[in-house]
Formats: sequence, structure tokens, C-alpha cells
Amino acid sequence: MEGFDPVVRAYPLKFKAPTLGDNRSPEKRLRDALSQELNQEQLYFPLQIARELPDVLPSSGYKVRAIVAKDHCGWRLCGCVPDEKPSKVLGLAVDLGSTSVVFYLVDLVSGKTIETLSKENPQRAHGEDILDRIIFAQRGGLKQLQKEVIDLFNGSAKELCKKAEATTSELFFMSVAGNTTMCHFFLALDPSHICKEPYIPAVNRFDIIFPSELGLDINPNAPVYVLPNVGSYFGGDLIAGILASKMAEREEISLLVDVGTNAEVVLGNKDWLVACAGAAGPALEGGILSCGMRAQPGAIERVEISPVDLSVHIKTIGDEPPKGLCGSGIIDLLAAMFEAGLVDQTGKLMIQRDPSRMTKIGHEWAYIVAFETETAHKQPVYITQSDIKNLIRSKGAMYTILNVVIQSVGITFDDIENFYVAGAFGNYIDPKKAITIGMLPDIPLERFKPLGNSAGKGAVRVLLDSSSMARIDEICDKITYLEMNVRGDFMNQLTGALFLPHTDLSRFPNVAKRLNLR
Amino acid sequence: MEGFDPVVRAYPLKFKAPTLGDNRSPEKRLRDALSQELNQEQLYFPLQIARELPDVLPSSGYKVRAIVAKDHCGWRLCGCVPDEKPSKVLGLAVDLGSTSVVFYLVDLVSGKTIETLSKENPQRAHGEDILDRIIFAQRGGLKQLQKEVIDLFNGSAKELCKKAEATTSELFFMSVAGNTTMCHFFLALDPSHICKEPYIPAVNRFDIIFPSELGLDINPNAPVYVLPNVGSYFGGDLIAGILASKMAEREEISLLVDVGTNAEVVLGNKDWLVACAGAAGPALEGGILSCGMRAQPGAIERVEISPVDLSVHIKTIGDEPPKGLCGSGIIDLLAAMFEAGLVDQTGKLMIQRDPSRMTKIGHEWAYIVAFETETAHKQPVYITQSDIKNLIRSKGAMYTILNVVIQSVGITFDDIENFYVAGAFGNYIDPKKAITIGMLPDIPLERFKPLGNSAGKGAVRVLLDSSSMARIDEICDKITYLEMNVRGDFMNQLTGALFLPHTDLSRFPNVAKRLNLR
Repeated sequence: MEGFDPVVRAYPLKFKAPTLGDNRSPEKRLRDALSQELNQEQLYFPLQIARELPDVLPSSGYKVRAIVAKDHCGWRLCGCVPDEKPSKVLGLAVDLGSTSVVFYLVDLVSGKTIETLSKENPQRAHGEDILDRIIFAQRGGLKQLQKEVIDLFNGSAKELCKKAEATTSELFFMSVAGNTTMCHFFLALDPSHICKEPYIPAVNRFDIIFPSELGLDINPNAPVYVLPNVGSYFGGDLIAGILASKMAEREEISLLVDVGTNAEVVLGNKDWLVACAGAAGPALEGGILSCGMRAQPGAIERVEISPVDLSVHIKTIGDEPPKGLCGSGIIDLLAAMFEAGLVDQTGKLMIQRDPSRMTKIGHEWAYIVAFETETAHKQPVYITQSDIKNLIRSKGAMYTILNVVIQSVGITFDDIENFYVAGAFGNYIDPKKAITIGMLPDIPLERFKPLGNSAGKGAVRVLLDSSSMARIDEICDKITYLEMNVRGDFMNQLTGALFLPHTDLSRFPNVAKRLNLR
Repeated sequence: MEGFDPVVRAYPLKFKAPTLGDNRSPEKRLRDALSQELNQEQLYFPLQIARELPDVLPSSGYKVRAIVAKDHCGWRLCGCVPDEKPSKVLGLAVDLGSTSVVFYLVDLVSGKTIETLSKENPQRAHGEDILDRIIFAQRGGLKQLQKEVIDLFNGSAKELCKKAEATTSELFFMSVAGNTTMCHFFLALDPSHICKEPYIPAVNRFDIIFPSELGLDINPNAPVYVLPNVGSYFGGDLIAGILASKMAEREEISLLVDVGTNAEVVLGNKDWLVACAGAAGPALEGGILSCGMRAQPGAIERVEISPVDLSVHIKTIGDEPPKGLCGSGIIDLLAAMFEAGLVDQTGKLMIQRDPSRMTKIGHEWAYIVAFETETAHKQPVYITQSDIKNLIRSKGAMYTILNVVIQSVGITFDDIENFYVAGAFGNYIDPKKAITIGMLPDIPLERFKPLGNSAGKGAVRVLLDSSSMARIDEICDKITYLEMNVRGDFMNQLTGALFLPHTDLSRFPNVAKRLNLR
């Protein structure tokens, strides 16, 4: 397997019984044998294992399996068991999201992910919005937020190990990727300064932590590695994405964007990396639109509007009757409405273009995507004029962030070989539609590459490639972080991006040509 | 101070308040600043300190003192406190003896030992003899033995810190030197195999341990370093002696001998080291002689016998009335008796030489050193014919061990530039007397150098010189250990050494000349 050099290794070892001619201690025998295997790299030998070894060696007939895990300064002995009943060698990778927490149980002998488990983040009870949770933490709730996620980890580790017929003591390494705030909650670090100027996390780089420090029920010697953050709005989830995409290992220039409430962007290659994050607005995720909803069954995820008869064709998640619009559906909808002439370049609803679907909601016009007769809740699903303005502001911010980053290094979008789209709905965005509304740049479609769950993939890669931790340190050292809040050009550029697709059509030649725009 | 590069360092650091232009986390700011100071050496940043730092930095006006301690893989951040009330920077060195435990409180800013405390080892309640304690451990008492010594450590640390107007949380490093068995008790390691063939300890090299693993009440991040042992009968106390003498750092050849129940010997220089240990017999320590006693007030420590009138002149510890003979007194006594013709070369008492002091004790003759009228307990202090035989066997074993070691590398005693005498009564032996009886080789007196409490001195040096731990690893790797039990030449050579000073007088030319022996 390419790059398979896991963070945990198991060595079968055979010894001779001690004699007067060789009366090294069990500890020294094991250390000498492992020193050879580990190419003289440093080995830390925990006291508890040294205590058990004098029994284990003779009782196993001097045939044992030694398990070592990579830590901050070399290797750490995590166990030494009789070879006849060898331990499983497992690692746990965690995508610690604010909505869902996804656990990957990885067999570190085969390199295979053998079980996966997705759980709701129990902290949602204190607010869907991260800010609400930060306020809860500031009011004395930090320990509780930590406990909730630790309990979730312990329960999930147990559940996964049971499925795999293993024990949690066979979990020898844990890697955790989450955004800066989630990692602060996990480690009970004060998140107060994350969300206010000058936006400082308590910690950027987490050193290896041990399970007892957090109350984690895994092997007590298992290193716990939490991916670092570069800033308050650029967390370990993004670093995991950089690692998963391998963009920092290649000559060619790639761009990685995580589209969510914040747009987080990394641009670069093996020699340099530039990053920034900025509020792209929750409209893109559907969060604040009149009929926006999460990507759950019943959410409209695809929309097409016939240019001939203006008929609307929708696809919902789970093919259930529609309830609302999720992120990819919203982008599809705006693109389709624009292509069909239902909105103009400023985003204004063209009421006369299809009066049958235009209606007043309160004081303002709206376009009906699904009539009440078609929906699950017998309410229409629609998009209002304000929704469209919000959406255009969000997509404009997204594009502007990308453009500022590109310009900061003096290249153009054409220089980008790989355009990775990560994040909650990165998988589901149709790049062509996103280009049509001017959210993503007008480059060849084949350059867009969905990354899937990049945080999870990056966390798994940490387990499978023992050089990842050093590589991540290099990535962090290399990143130049542009603080979008302090860049005047952002506001200047944003204005031009508040059009469909943009005031400057030369930036979107294919869209202009296809839609015959001038 | 020569070689003063302590294992704990304190750095006063000043920061600017964070801004949008520099919004590194408190952790990253501290890490960046320390990285410079530490010459980019690895720094481990414990989670608990990362938790406290976001409060400490602003509340101190961004003026702090960071304290780092050397651990197994670089430096470990142990504290970060406001600079206006700086922490004391203390280390604790411990000579963990089976009889006494001596604590040295060291100020790691000045390098001075500011307090010393000597305590009886509470494990003596389970037997004066280490073997009795091993049996006690095997019968389920190991945890108790550990607890007794940990309690002693905690109580003594508290007592010392109180004297120094410090707190135990200001103890940032602990180094412990003891023999192999004592260290096993301290760490609750099974000592069963130490005392039976093939004499294997559970552990040779102890990695850095942290206070919570042992229940030590010192700074929770303070590394605890236990000096390694080379074998069951060659412990960290001897390694400390090698370190204290600096013999492994010099070109010239030195010999270090620790005279006790076992004789432990190291020979070598900066390029090579040979070691061995063997039973020299407790007679040298006075332990088993009829009137032997520990070196306490009332013990006869110096003896002279006038060659003219055979009058006996003694000096006791504390100048109190005599109660018995301690080690140095016994060696003096035998040498004086031999010089005065009171014993012959075979060790036979010459009854007629001074009938006034010869008496029968039970079936056998004895020589009275102090009459009952002179002593504290109104009993005579004497040495019997059997005592003398025992003593000669012990001194003969001592000499033979030295000789075997010397021969194993093909040198002679004349090649030894420094002859270090360590151990409980190493300080008190008069080398001239020890040479007279053939216990130590007949080399110029100025080459003998008492080392004092070499275990304590070595443990203190670990605190004062951060390269010591690496040096000790080198020492251990370099030592060739001769197992005296498996060397046939030992028994062959011993026979010749059962004379005063030796059957082969050419080995003791100065003694032979002075005493006109043939």
C-alpha cells in the first residue's frame, strides 16, 4: 500500500532464557531487540510495562509481540503480549465536527478502515451555532462540553471495538481532526478569545496527550494526536484536508476550499502555502434561508428548470417529498433561475417571466420551487428576494476570498491544477452550477475534485503514515495566513462579485458565452 | 561554575499583547520564544500549562518566567509564572541507601545545595539485610515497601522545602541514585530475580518517570530520573560514583571501588570501562564481627598500637566511651596488630606477644582492644581468632576482585592514576592501613582519593549538568561487566590473598620493606 508506514507497529520477538552469560533485564532485552527493529530511534519504555515484563517473558516461553506507537519524540512501547494470543493493533481516527462526529476504526496491520461510526455531536444541545457553545463554555460549561465529547468518544470506541471483536485496550493511537473551537472543547481549553478580535486560540499546536489526561478509555499508553490549527478560523480539519489531498507534497499548484459558514481556503504546493478564512455567509449552507434546511431526507439537493417551459425538476435526499432546500439545492436553484431568466444579473426576481410560480410572502416576492401539494409538510418551498440577496452576498464573498488569495501570490485561477472542494457539502456541489452563479471561478470542470470527508481522511492518514505528524508541522510552519478581516482589498473586490456571475464578465468567459451575456 | 548547565532552566520572557497582525496563541508565542532560547531543541508543552497560559499571559502584563526541565527527549515545559513573583527553581537529588536515605535540595539557579537531610530508610523494619526485604516483597509486601519510601520522599521534600521557604511544586526535577534492589522497591518492580541465579533485575535502564506514576508530591511535570543499573549487584549508586569521580571523562586510568557487603569495582577511562562486583564479605563493614558495629557515636574508628610498649590508642566517633568497632577501626586494628607482631602472616594470634590483652572467649582466643573498665557498656571490646579469619577472607576477596579486574585488561596497579574509594566507610578507611593488611594494592598513597557520598554526589551532578543523563547512557553502554561468580581465576587467586598482606610479597614491596617481611 502506498505510503503505508503506520504510527503503530507490532514486532514478534523471540528471546533465549537468561543465563549467567547474558543476564540482561527483561527490559534491556526488549529494548535491545526493538532498538534494532526501530533503527536505533528513541524508545520510551513506560514503567507499568517494565513491571509486567518479568512475568510476561517466561510465561510466554520468551515469544512475545511488542507494540510500539509513534509519539512526539520517537516510539513509545504500548504493550508486550504473549505471541500465541497476539493483540489486535488498532487505531482510531476521529473527525470531530460540530454537527457530527465520525469515528474510523483502522486495522494498523492491514491498513484497512474496518468500521466507521457517525454520531451526532451531543454539544448541539447547547446550541447549533458554535458561538452559542462558546458562550455556554464561558458561563462555566467548558468542563461539561468536554465531558460530553469524551463520553461520546468512549462510548463510540467501545461500540466500534465490540463490532470488531476487539477491546478498547487494543486501540494504540488516536488522531483527532476538528475545527479550532471543537478541539478546544475536547481539551477543555478556554475558547473565549477565538471569536473576538484579535481572534486567538489558546493553543495552536497540541503536543501528544495521553489518555489519562482526558479520561479516554483506550490503551493507557496510546498517544492521542490532535491536529493543530493555524488560527481561530483555520483548524485541524483543514490541516487534515491538506494532508488528505497531498497538495503540499506536489509540484503543481492546488487550491483547497472548505465551504461552510466560513470559507476556508488554502493555496499552494510543496514549496509554499497561503491560507485564509472569511465569512462566506451561512446562506450557502442553507442555514438562514426561508426554506433552508440541513442535508437530511426530504431536502431538495438538485434543481433543474427547463429553459423551454420553465418546468421545475427536483431531486430530494432519500427521494422523499420535499421539505426544504439544502446547500447544493440552493446553488442549483439560483443557477437554474439565472439561466432561465427568472432572476437578472443583479439578482432581481423577474416576476413576469413565470407568474405561476411567483408569489408574495409577507411584503416581498418569492419564487416557488415546490407547491404545497407536492411537499411533505403541505407548505410551499420557495426562495424570497431577500434570500437571493443573501445568497449573492455569500457567493460573492466566497469568490472574493478565492480571488484575494490568488492575487496575493500573483497567479490566476488558470494556474490551479487541482481545485479541491471539501466540507460538509463539498461533495454535493455541482461545480458547473457554482460557476454559473459566480461562486467558483470559471476553470475547466475536470479540475474540480471533491475531497469527501477530508477531516476524516486526513485523520486516517495520520494513522497510516508515521511521517504525517512531522509533515503537518512542516505544513503549519509553511503556511502564510492572510487575515481577511484586515485586508482592505476584500471589501473593494466584494462589490463587483455581488452580480451574477460578476460585473466583470471577462472573468467568466464560458458562462458569458453559454448564456450569451454582455 | 565548571560544567554548570542545570537540568532545569528558567527564562524571563516578555511579550507584546496580541494584535490582528500577530494573533498567535499564547502557546505558540511561548513556544516560539523558548525555541530560540533552547536552540530549537524539542520542547514538550503539557496540556495543563496550555490551559492556564491564556490567563497567565495578560494577567502578568505579558512578563513571565518559563521553567523548562530536561526529559528523555528534549525539554519539558514545567511552569510559566508571572515574572513579578518568580518561582524558586529547585531540584532534589536523593541517595537512596538501604540504611539511610539522604536528600539534597539544590537551587538550580545558583547551583548550590541549600539543604541536606538524612533519614533512616523505613524499610529497615522489614530487615536490615536487603535479602530479608526481598523476601518480604515476594510475600506480597512490594507495594508496602514502595509506599514507605515514597512517603519518606514526600515527607522529606516537604520538610526541606519548608526550611528553604519554598513549596514542593517548585521542585522541578528529581534524581535518584540507589542500588538495584532499592530502586526496584522504589518503583515497585519485582526484585525476585535479583538475588538468585542468573541474577537479573527487572529493569536496567529506567526511562523518565512522572510524579503521578509514583504518587510523588512535587511539581507534576517534574521529570524523575532514576540512575540505571548495570546488573543486580551494580546499581545506580555505582553509576553515580562513576559520574561523581568523572573517571569516564579522563584519559588516565582510574579505579573506583565501593567497599561494602559487596565490593563493587569499576576500572577504566573515557574510552573503556570494566566493572565487576563480588562478595567481599560483611566483615569489612564490621557487620558480623563479635564486637562490630555501625559507624555511630561510640564506635572505634581509629586504632594505633605502639610498637614499643604495645599500648593501644583508640579514637571513637563523637569521642564517646567505646562500644564496638566500625569498619575503619577494624582495618586499623588488624594493620596495627600485624605491625606489632600480635598476629602472624597467616592471621594467627600471637598469644605470647601480649598476654595482658589476650583472653579466651568461649573456646577461642581473642585480643582485647578496650577493657570493660574503659567501655560504655562495661563489656570488653575485642577481636577473636575467628573474626580475624573472617576479616582476612573479606580483605582477600576484596584484593582478588581488584586483581582480577586489573588482569582482565592486562594492566597492573601501577597504571592506575586515581584510586577512588567510595561507599559507606570509604571516607574513613586509612589507605595505608588497608595496604598493610593487603586489602588495597601497594601503590603511592596520594593516588587514593576518598569520594565521600558518591551516590549523593552523582545524583547532585545529574541536576547540575544536563548532559549527565546522556553521559550515563554512554557509560552504561561502555561498561563490560565481569560476572565474578563465573570466573574460575577468582577462586584460584583468592588463596594467595588469604595472607597478610599476601603470599606473594613482591606485590607489596613497600609493606614488605617497612615491616621487614620475607
